[in-house]
Amino acid sequence: MKIEAVDFFYLSMPEVTTEGDGSQDALLVRVTAGAHCGWGECEASPLVSIAAFVCPMSHGACRPVSMSVLGQPIDGPEDIQRIAAKIELDSMDLLQAPHTWSGIEIALWDLLGKVRQEPVWKLLGYNQSYPKLPYASQLFGDTPAQTYELASEARAQNFRAVKFGWGPIGRGDLQTDNDHFHAAREGLGKDARLMVDVGQIFAEDVDAAAARLPMLQQVGALWLEEPFPTSALHAYAALAAQSEMKLAGGEGAHNLYMARHLIDYGKVGFVQIDTGRIGGIGPAKLAADYAVSTDVTFVNHTFTSHLALSASLQPYAGLRAYEICEYPFSPKPLARELTLNHLQRDADGYVHLPDSPGLGIEINTEAIRRYLVNLEIKAKDTILFSSDLQTF
Amino acid sequence: MKIEAVDFFYLSMPEVTTEGDGSQDALLVRVTAGAHCGWGECEASPLVSIAAFVCPMSHGACRPVSMSVLGQPIDGPEDIQRIAAKIELDSMDLLQAPHTWSGIEIALWDLLGKVRQEPVWKLLGYNQSYPKLPYASQLFGDTPAQTYELASEARAQNFRAVKFGWGPIGRGDLQTDNDHFHAAREGLGKDARLMVDVGQIFAEDVDAAAARLPMLQQVGALWLEEPFPTSALHAYAALAAQSEMKLAGGEGAHNLYMARHLIDYGKVGFVQIDTGRIGGIGPAKLAADYAVSTDVTFVNHTFTSHLALSASLQPYAGLRAYEICEYPFSPKPLARELTLNHLQRDADGYVHLPDSPGLGIEINTEAIRRYLVNLEIKAKDTILFSSDLQTF
Repeated sequence: MKIEAVDFFYLSMPEVTTEGDGSQDALLVRVTAGAHCGWGECEASPLVSIAAFVCPMSHGACRPVSMSVLGQPIDGPEDIQRIAAKIELDSMDLLQAPHTWSGIEIALWDLLGKVRQEPVWKLLGYNQSYPKLPYASQLFGDTPAQTYELASEARAQNFRAVKFGWGPIGRGDLQTDNDHFHAAREGLGKDARLMVDVGQIFAEDVDAAAARLPMLQQVGALWLEEPFPTSALHAYAALAAQSEMKLAGGEGAHNLYMARHLIDYGKVGFVQIDTGRIGGIGPAKLAADYAVSTDVTFVNHTFTSHLALSASLQPYAGLRAYEICEYPFSPKPLARELTLNHLQRDADGYVHLPDSPGLGIEINTEAIRRYLVNLEIKAKDTILFSSDLQTF
Repeated sequence: MKIEAVDFFYLSMPEVTTEGDGSQDALLVRVTAGAHCGWGECEASPLVSIAAFVCPMSHGACRPVSMSVLGQPIDGPEDIQRIAAKIELDSMDLLQAPHTWSGIEIALWDLLGKVRQEPVWKLLGYNQSYPKLPYASQLFGDTPAQTYELASEARAQNFRAVKFGWGPIGRGDLQTDNDHFHAAREGLGKDARLMVDVGQIFAEDVDAAAARLPMLQQVGALWLEEPFPTSALHAYAALAAQSEMKLAGGEGAHNLYMARHLIDYGKVGFVQIDTGRIGGIGPAKLAADYAVSTDVTFVNHTFTSHLALSASLQPYAGLRAYEICEYPFSPKPLARELTLNHLQRDADGYVHLPDSPGLGIEINTEAIRRYLVNLEIKAKDTILFSSDLQTF
């Protein structure tokens, strides 16, 4: 088989706001080869990721992603790896390339799974897929009272783990942060697991982050996530050295190296990988292998649709000890409607990856039509991309 | 003053080939504030970098670069730093953002220099700008005989240092590589400095790179550049541990962290920074400061116009000990014609940064007209970018 077509569907809510909710738009990717097709999703900024696929070549090491993908043979996982290596070399100077490639790579695994009639986790070498305990991933409220309500609501919905992120934390005084942390714990009750994500708010200020450690330990937080930018490894290491609680990070990793760096140099205890950014399922699986070998816990990162959720769980589906998983708690309608089926929690609150071929997720083409963004890119008098030419 | 306009000019040679020559296209940036304007240049993939400026917002941490730039006050270097920090946070999930911002940042320094009637290196805190010894930066020939000719030609043009890169190295057998290295040395004569750049060809294969070390040492190469991808820090460190010759890398650094990592973890002896990628002149200056503090040599990376060349030299203009600099040897006509003046070498073969305000480089608007690429991006029924609307 050869890769005959790669189609991008830029979807968006009618209104996009500045809240830190990544489910407000989506870039869906469909790859066609032979009689089969697979679906994937790229994380963030659809227009820019499409541009990285269709842009004119700048030079030999700055080729559009399309040049390394279209027409390539695709008969097994080794072909995915070969194409990935080609992109790493031929699109070396195209910074956005890993985000674009991530969605395509996921779609290729989905496609191969359909061809072989096997779930992706089997193609990855796992004999079994173990249930994961989802944590409800949501933003802090604007006030501690709101945070309390959100925590109570998640608990009422039978979530046994909840992560709060972003919002006001680190933007005001210590007392406000403390109030939010305590409100979260009170809303959850004392048995549920609580994680806190501060969205890189402290830049490189280790002391500012350290000032929150006693509060977080007091409410029994499992981890502190992203106190600093993904690459501020020295800051991660300095904070880890003075924290009994483990640090978490990695969603910004756009290659396997960055995931390794957070483990080797940043000393995180949880490495969080988004298959929609790191280059897809292949490098995410290698990151999971590396986590195993270094006694660090692998966790998926995902905040959008259940297609992205399924993709993000495959790399560590067979790793029983890594039980916890991120689970979008209240995504926008777009992210919810994008798929016909969903990874529902069972009575004990666990999620199970489908045994059906590929990613096991059915796309809702009706939703695509509803949320599709009208986009056209023309350069050098040629239409490089037009949503009008898309079929589904 | 406020930033009133940021204009992008996508320029391209009529034909772009797969050779590793980065001067085949260019993204020129003009920033206007008050009665002033400044010029900068982004490295690589103009369409994608423009897209990162004009794209619709995905969410609060994935805003287009324009949202952090347009309308911002710009009265001094501290404003540039403030905008950079804003982009790091608000465009965290937009991978291409640092490349887009780099050109804008450079233009802002040029603009501030014009406002204050001072060269950029003075704004950076240097009292003096020291001459740099340029190395002719060019690609290996297809055959050793061609490499010999290219080396002889550079020597005949009075270059006392030459860097050969890319081409056949690492793609064939050891003997071929050896022949090229020897041909380069023979063409140069024994006194000229010789550097070798292999363009990440060895992926993570430390042994393959190590096999070239004795050959390179035999021809007296000053450094081996980019044996591995920028982020393969463990591979750099492993090779550095078995090499007497120093390693060089860093052109792929798209933030200050990555430059530091190559020094701290990769153990390079030369850190090569492209102001058109790392986020502009500010972070490049901090990388130079860090190099000083760690006894590593800072070198500019640049392969395009003399606007980019001037920008790349500013961060270490006042560091006398870091004498060597990259200098495009045979750029495409586009890169040459883009500026009215050039940093010519003096009789001793040195280049001097201009003492005139800003970057000291005059843009050739006639050349812009000649090489301008017709580009239009429309989304959600709105024209986000159109080259037809550009004035100059």
